[in-house]
Amino acid sequence: MQIQELEQSLVRSLLMQEGPGGSEGDILTWLEKRNREVVVRINRTPFKQLTNWAFDPATGNLAHASGKFFSIEGIRVLMDDGRPREWTQPIINQPEIGFLGILAKEIDGVLCFLLQAKIEPGNVNHVQLSPTLQATRSNYTQVHKGRKPQYLECFQNAKKEQVILDQLQSEQGARFLRKRNRNIILQIDEDVPVGEDFRWLTLGQIKALMNHDNVVNMDTRTVISGLRYHGHVSGLSLYDFNRFMELLDVGSFGRDLFVSERAISGFRTIDGILFWLSGLKARYELLVDRIPLKAVEDWQVTEDEIVRADRRFFRILGVEITIDNREVRSWCQPLVEPMQEGLCAFIIKKIAGIYHFLVQAKIECGNFDVVEMAPTVQCLTGRYKGPNAVPPPFLDYVLRASGAQIIFDTKQSEEGGRFFHEQNRNVLIEADDLFPEQVPENFMWLTLGQIKEFLRFNNYLNIQARSLIAALDYR
Amino acid sequence: MQIQELEQSLVRSLLMQEGPGGSEGDILTWLEKRNREVVVRINRTPFKQLTNWAFDPATGNLAHASGKFFSIEGIRVLMDDGRPREWTQPIINQPEIGFLGILAKEIDGVLCFLLQAKIEPGNVNHVQLSPTLQATRSNYTQVHKGRKPQYLECFQNAKKEQVILDQLQSEQGARFLRKRNRNIILQIDEDVPVGEDFRWLTLGQIKALMNHDNVVNMDTRTVISGLRYHGHVSGLSLYDFNRFMELLDVGSFGRDLFVSERAISGFRTIDGILFWLSGLKARYELLVDRIPLKAVEDWQVTEDEIVRADRRFFRILGVEITIDNREVRSWCQPLVEPMQEGLCAFIIKKIAGIYHFLVQAKIECGNFDVVEMAPTVQCLTGRYKGPNAVPPPFLDYVLRASGAQIIFDTKQSEEGGRFFHEQNRNVLIEADDLFPEQVPENFMWLTLGQIKEFLRFNNYLNIQARSLIAALDYR
Repeated sequence: MQIQELEQSLVRSLLMQEGPGGSEGDILTWLEKRNREVVVRINRTPFKQLTNWAFDPATGNLAHASGKFFSIEGIRVLMDDGRPREWTQPIINQPEIGFLGILAKEIDGVLCFLLQAKIEPGNVNHVQLSPTLQATRSNYTQVHKGRKPQYLECFQNAKKEQVILDQLQSEQGARFLRKRNRNIILQIDEDVPVGEDFRWLTLGQIKALMNHDNVVNMDTRTVISGLRYHGHVSGLSLYDFNRFMELLDVGSFGRDLFVSERAISGFRTIDGILFWLSGLKARYELLVDRIPLKAVEDWQVTEDEIVRADRRFFRILGVEITIDNREVRSWCQPLVEPMQEGLCAFIIKKIAGIYHFLVQAKIECGNFDVVEMAPTVQCLTGRYKGPNAVPPPFLDYVLRASGAQIIFDTKQSEEGGRFFHEQNRNVLIEADDLFPEQVPENFMWLTLGQIKEFLRFNNYLNIQARSLIAALDYR
Repeated sequence: MQIQELEQSLVRSLLMQEGPGGSEGDILTWLEKRNREVVVRINRTPFKQLTNWAFDPATGNLAHASGKFFSIEGIRVLMDDGRPREWTQPIINQPEIGFLGILAKEIDGVLCFLLQAKIEPGNVNHVQLSPTLQATRSNYTQVHKGRKPQYLECFQNAKKEQVILDQLQSEQGARFLRKRNRNIILQIDEDVPVGEDFRWLTLGQIKALMNHDNVVNMDTRTVISGLRYHGHVSGLSLYDFNRFMELLDVGSFGRDLFVSERAISGFRTIDGILFWLSGLKARYELLVDRIPLKAVEDWQVTEDEIVRADRRFFRILGVEITIDNREVRSWCQPLVEPMQEGLCAFIIKKIAGIYHFLVQAKIECGNFDVVEMAPTVQCLTGRYKGPNAVPPPFLDYVLRASGAQIIFDTKQSEEGGRFFHEQNRNVLIEADDLFPEQVPENFMWLTLGQIKEFLRFNNYLNIQARSLIAALDYR
């Protein structure tokens, strides 16, 4: 398939609300039905009854008997982003790159994406829409001796002609130690069997479903965030671009997104943004050393939780899980539960008529490269409620935004395979006219075209930023 | 200054052999003179007489009393690039991002670069051409209480309009643990004082001087490797491009380099190359843990060296240094001495009339991101001399290349601030017509335009590859 054809079929998919898998309502009904049909039991379990998991006597690390999957270890962090600080904390160590893979196929001239109604133990609502394949290396090398993940061969045998997108992207830098996954979308021409847990969806449908709380899982969101429409619209003259928007019946907000997607230069050039990032990465300091979980200060390991004495940030639990439609029907594992509600918000503003996203260079302890570009606001909102709390920049602005400024405002879940009932408020806010173009030195205005260019080269945008980008609806 | 102007002045600089600092001969004479004038004494010293350096009693790590600069520690490496292996070794830990900065200024319409005749203790020939500023963070925060490095303020106060290039690039992955430096070139308009150790050189001169052994130091090479001429030539029609080449009197090899620089698509697209890299990074494994130097196996710490029993790879020495024109006149430090001669070679080949560079995805223990793109051949040649040795791919081809195929073949030094008398043979070979386009899976053909695009986004090309790219002479 030619690149140009792909993009046309991709842009059509982006604007299409009906697909071979039915309407938005049909998909929601199907998800509810799967939720009812599949038996799920999640029970909290003391660590000593967590089958196959044990605390290492020497280090105190909580690990799987196989030495695979992941482990709960400690880190010592020395961080300086102008405010030097040092602490120890538990962290999830999972030094494997897993697959987050989506199969795509042109159906009636529209590119459709094969998603799975998948249950993860930590999901608030059990079933969410996952990628076609979501598998850690331990998973697909079958350490747990379960069934082989479906569609694995397609991804293992990918040919270069099939690849729509292939990126290594980071996960939560505050919880994982430099974890990354391979985000990949492959286009296939042949028919594949589609089981009752799977459906073909258009991109427009996936985005529409993101207007509902906790329907599209984190892994699906990160994979589709990397899709670029730039190539299709950037070469067009203004006349042809406008005609194309008319033909596709794109609304005014969607048109503005396409305009921003076309803009590879904006408030700053790409080289200007790289200069900004290099300066911060060189000036900030992030030293992270793995330490035994035993050596972590301020945290205690009880019979059934690993938690701070003041119960802040997060805690680690043990759970026993029984799920009917997974490769393994029953297993035990630790899960991480957040102690507070989170907020991820992008403020966008038209500068010279082009939407720019206000990006924050954020340092987080598990980051692969000191800072990653994060949403304008990314925080635990509960932390800033006390009388002496100093809220992060723009938090107040986001919390006080008027209804007309709010483009979307939903709750989205973090990965239910590691996090227990973690959902963050995802908000997109349009700045009012008085909002300043001049912002603090760790903030920068990027066009959508620039964001997509950085996405392509890996590890520039964090998972929270990617989740918000994925939710942009171009209709 | 407009981007277009910059590029014209940059391309002129690239092709110019005379500059305000004199001819090639003048520069060489000046370097020899500086070498004679400046007093340098380098004496090997037992570790216990290494002032300000000591082995930590608990870990055995060799560190500076200030806790700054760098330390010699241990790592445990688990590496799998299809051939799983595990070992421990000493490594240089220097978790700081330093400046490698060059000031540029237009003189008589030609962009010139301010280089320094600098002595480093490990240099085979003492004086080499260094960037304007070469300073670790410890250095410029003046941990050693010496003089403040010259020109530091220019780089600390850089404005976005001045930036020609700003990249974070890696250093030797087999010797440093994830070390990176900030490679930066700033253009200034105002006059700055130019001391007797400094001269303004054209880019063409710097490249001509790379035809001599050990004249242009590693830091200068890595900084200039990132310069892109693409923007200036890629927008031109073939007719305008050819006229431009005629006007600038570019030779046939130089013209071929500009053609390759124009090619952002080649044997593979950029996305195709990213797919190739993602696949290898996901499949290969690299787990590196810091361990105490004491815990390193197969290495012994004697009175005056840290060395393997079989004396392979490298050893670490202590030296006492007295140099006249440095911020500090006398100091002690450890240096790393290689045990064998090294070879770094790129094979290039015209595919569809465009030069492609045969790049190797190489895994090295100190790499920031599992693999980096390395030259076609990068190895210690001494290792493959035994009867049972299995030489790496293409080593034989490079060693047997006929004179007509060899575009350049010089010895270039590694960083004399850390390495003692380390020089590697840098070779560029043009493949013969029979050389296959199909190469092993960890090799890939890239155009020069593609290489420059990857350089821009940091940590894609290793220092050995960058050194060879820096030496390309476009005249």
